[in-house]
Amino acid sequence: MLVFKSAFRLSLLICFSFLILNETAAAQDVYAAWRKDWLQKAREFTPALKTTIKKPVGIVRIEKDASAFQGWKAVNAGGADQLYSSSINKRNSSIVVDFGEHLTGYCTITLKTRRSDMDAPVRLKLTFGEVPAEIATPFDPYPGGLSRAWLQDEIITVTVLPATITIPRRVAFRYLKVDLLGSSPNFDFNIADLSFKASTSVRMTPPALTAGTSQIIKDIDCVGLNTLKECMQTVYEDGPKRDRRLWIGDTYLESLANLYSFHNDSLTRRCLYLLAGLANEDGMLSADVFEEPEPHSHNTRLLDYCYLYNVALKEYVAGTGDKQTGLDLWPVAKKQLDIARKYALPDGMMDYQKANKEWWVFFDWKDGLDKQAPLQGITIYTLNQTYELAKILGKENEVADLPAFARKLKNAAHKSLYDKKSGLFISGKDRQISYGGQAWMILSGVATKAEAQRALKTLPAVTDAVHPGAPYMYHYYVAALIASGLNAEAKQAVIDYWGGMIKKGADTFWEVYDPVDEFKSPYGFFPVNSYCHAWSCTPVYFIRKYPEIFQR
Amino acid sequence: MLVFKSAFRLSLLICFSFLILNETAAAQDVYAAWRKDWLQKAREFTPALKTTIKKPVGIVRIEKDASAFQGWKAVNAGGADQLYSSSINKRNSSIVVDFGEHLTGYCTITLKTRRSDMDAPVRLKLTFGEVPAEIATPFDPYPGGLSRAWLQDEIITVTVLPATITIPRRVAFRYLKVDLLGSSPNFDFNIADLSFKASTSVRMTPPALTAGTSQIIKDIDCVGLNTLKECMQTVYEDGPKRDRRLWIGDTYLESLANLYSFHNDSLTRRCLYLLAGLANEDGMLSADVFEEPEPHSHNTRLLDYCYLYNVALKEYVAGTGDKQTGLDLWPVAKKQLDIARKYALPDGMMDYQKANKEWWVFFDWKDGLDKQAPLQGITIYTLNQTYELAKILGKENEVADLPAFARKLKNAAHKSLYDKKSGLFISGKDRQISYGGQAWMILSGVATKAEAQRALKTLPAVTDAVHPGAPYMYHYYVAALIASGLNAEAKQAVIDYWGGMIKKGADTFWEVYDPVDEFKSPYGFFPVNSYCHAWSCTPVYFIRKYPEIFQR
Repeated sequence: MLVFKSAFRLSLLICFSFLILNETAAAQDVYAAWRKDWLQKAREFTPALKTTIKKPVGIVRIEKDASAFQGWKAVNAGGADQLYSSSINKRNSSIVVDFGEHLTGYCTITLKTRRSDMDAPVRLKLTFGEVPAEIATPFDPYPGGLSRAWLQDEIITVTVLPATITIPRRVAFRYLKVDLLGSSPNFDFNIADLSFKASTSVRMTPPALTAGTSQIIKDIDCVGLNTLKECMQTVYEDGPKRDRRLWIGDTYLESLANLYSFHNDSLTRRCLYLLAGLANEDGMLSADVFEEPEPHSHNTRLLDYCYLYNVALKEYVAGTGDKQTGLDLWPVAKKQLDIARKYALPDGMMDYQKANKEWWVFFDWKDGLDKQAPLQGITIYTLNQTYELAKILGKENEVADLPAFARKLKNAAHKSLYDKKSGLFISGKDRQISYGGQAWMILSGVATKAEAQRALKTLPAVTDAVHPGAPYMYHYYVAALIASGLNAEAKQAVIDYWGGMIKKGADTFWEVYDPVDEFKSPYGFFPVNSYCHAWSCTPVYFIRKYPEIFQR
Repeated sequence: MLVFKSAFRLSLLICFSFLILNETAAAQDVYAAWRKDWLQKAREFTPALKTTIKKPVGIVRIEKDASAFQGWKAVNAGGADQLYSSSINKRNSSIVVDFGEHLTGYCTITLKTRRSDMDAPVRLKLTFGEVPAEIATPFDPYPGGLSRAWLQDEIITVTVLPATITIPRRVAFRYLKVDLLGSSPNFDFNIADLSFKASTSVRMTPPALTAGTSQIIKDIDCVGLNTLKECMQTVYEDGPKRDRRLWIGDTYLESLANLYSFHNDSLTRRCLYLLAGLANEDGMLSADVFEEPEPHSHNTRLLDYCYLYNVALKEYVAGTGDKQTGLDLWPVAKKQLDIARKYALPDGMMDYQKANKEWWVFFDWKDGLDKQAPLQGITIYTLNQTYELAKILGKENEVADLPAFARKLKNAAHKSLYDKKSGLFISGKDRQISYGGQAWMILSGVATKAEAQRALKTLPAVTDAVHPGAPYMYHYYVAALIASGLNAEAKQAVIDYWGGMIKKGADTFWEVYDPVDEFKSPYGFFPVNSYCHAWSCTPVYFIRKYPEIFQR
């Protein structure tokens, strides 16, 4: 009886706590008045996907080649006719099909008996790869940190031929390897048809670059456009292979590139409303959100991405003139400023230590990057950009303190982080010199133009400078070069870095690219990297926004 | 121009050849007048499958146990509630579900997120096993001779939860192992529902055995009925796991058991018409046929199965009184006698050497079995049974030579194969003594009753006698015991052999069962054996046809 009584009391307690928590939670939703409307608008602006049926261009052999990207290259081994006329059997148990371009969507394969009668089921493995090494590298035993299931190998059993099978999973790839895992020696079969329903929400072709544009810039623009197109589905995805979802940081860069290319402004608008509608009840944005099974946020608090929402909103409103969206979402932008207000110390420096305890402070996939300078810079940049947005929307009075606040942080940064002797900005107690630190000190306006040019020109000679770890940080570096008026250097950086990927065979730009380590992976296994990644598409933005730099 | 001309001539030539070949082929089809009608009737008699939704009874651990069948046993590890309440994650990455009985059909699994957000796809392997060792034994590297794809392990990738997934492939199993191959540590998920759409064309429960029947006979009957029920789909399948198709030998034994149990006579009729409609154009039957994608024959000429078609047809007509089917298919039965006429030598002995060159002469999965005596016996048996069929149909005049023909073969057999000294029938130049040889000499009536009894009583003491290799041959051995009046021995043989499988945990009877070698496989890998196999169901027939022997 005592047990029962205690259990009863406990359950009452749980009940009450739950009610109280719910009450509190309801009271805390700072967006309660708007959330439903934002999500409704996000739904309304969902683009219809444009689908195209694609066919293989031929078959290839994946060959070892130390000089090729990640040690493997695809070598032409016949046309599509040869694919359809080859039996799959023990003597020909592995075929690699080349679709000639990066595609995202659904694969359908038709198999037919070719000789004698099918007297047993067939077991096939279909491996979809964005790059040749992904096709050649065994996936198991899997050493990676992320889910093994991101890797795109699907195993099917076919009991009756002919059969037309659509792989249920959406894949992103250029190469498809078909491996025979089981069959009977008593019959042969072949691939009678192979087709791919490719999807994107891009509906137009942007204008060609000016006639005088160099071939490498044209190539970079083309691959950038392909990258962006592949990532533009019903949201701006970070990568169509992985993670296939809306992250603020990627969305910011994609929407910039879109503004100067595909003009699918409705998609940007959808993503901005969706992120707002799925923000945390305390007003802070989630770094990423999922569309399925119904839109919901991922519980990831990433500081710099909250800031970049404001910047993305400002760029969208400024670029499209759509003030209504700006006004609708202004409360969100205003709320993100709480981060700056909370972590700014009386001396004008951001309290990185404290922020880092409470947030994921990202900036780049780069071990060892000190984030003091980048955080200080992005905070100032966000304050300035948000004030610009307020001006467009006629809301300056609501954030009247911003100019002085930004100035204070700027002066403090210059005082604490600028090393006059070397002409470089330092970061952290170990006085780290990084590309990221310089970039954010320049974009924020902490550096004067002269200081910026000096820092960026000095940087390449600093042997222990922390380089960008991924194209994402490279974007801010190039933006800083342009902001400093180092146009030739900006162009050269784009040619060296993104052009480097093209020289190594990229059909789309990669999530991670370190020119000196082709196997670099933040996830412990390079095949799980995304080789078509949104944040890598920004040359499109640079090339098309600054024709005087890039198109001549 | 010359090229064109030649090509034109060549194509004309091909055209003409094709016409000629077609003409010849048409002229050769001995069943041209009936084939269409037979196939139409086979279609008409296709049974509607009865489907039942089945649920797991619980979860089990598959444990090593030297005393268990094939070294593995299933140990109860919780109820279905525990299945549904367990997270699948790194700490609980393998679950074995027990459905409590052998089932054939389609599996549907519902997965739900249980903790936090799904931030990566999930990769699962579902392994369906008829017996515990099939669940515990790694399938790769696959050492078997048959297609690896017969093994029932399916790999799925799930990108969005909750998800309800139906495995496209039909499976036959009792145990289902779910292995986690890939997920993210950031969330847990669980099996929220698991259901199985089981199918059979059996629609009734046969009457209970008489009250005095011993428990072991009741158990054997029950397992036999389950075996038969599972194999009765839209045709008599040999095994619902493998080969999933209509073989004459299995159909014969299934239709016998069905006559005394489920009375699904329409299924037998369908199979007899289907086999006839898909016979070779020279009139010889194919040993097996496929239903999908459209009915077609397998190009397998198996001598003893052609004979057994006649016996099956006779038993069907005698058992059901359906003379019309008998009359329709009489041309097929008559035609199969050509085999006997072709290979009977002037001395009355069958020319096994010649037959073996031109046919697959099967009888049993038993290496080294000499087939001279079995072939002689089955030929005589078929001649007699076909003459019985002719009598029922009033067709004796068409095969008036059969009694004398059979007598000639019988006398020759007695003269050549009976060893008076030992009282056993020998086979081949090495004078092999086998169970199969005695069985067929007895069933054919070559042996007198006294000789039969002596042979069968002597046999167990013959140390080098060739034993049956599979339940299929064991059927003929038990039939011979009954034919010889050795009723107690027949009952004991059923108890020892099929009861032996039950003691080892059989839910359904196996394709291959050697009491002294549990790993025996005709295919080089025991997990690919069928553990629910039609030809093993015949105790149902014996027990219910001969209640005076078995049900007391």
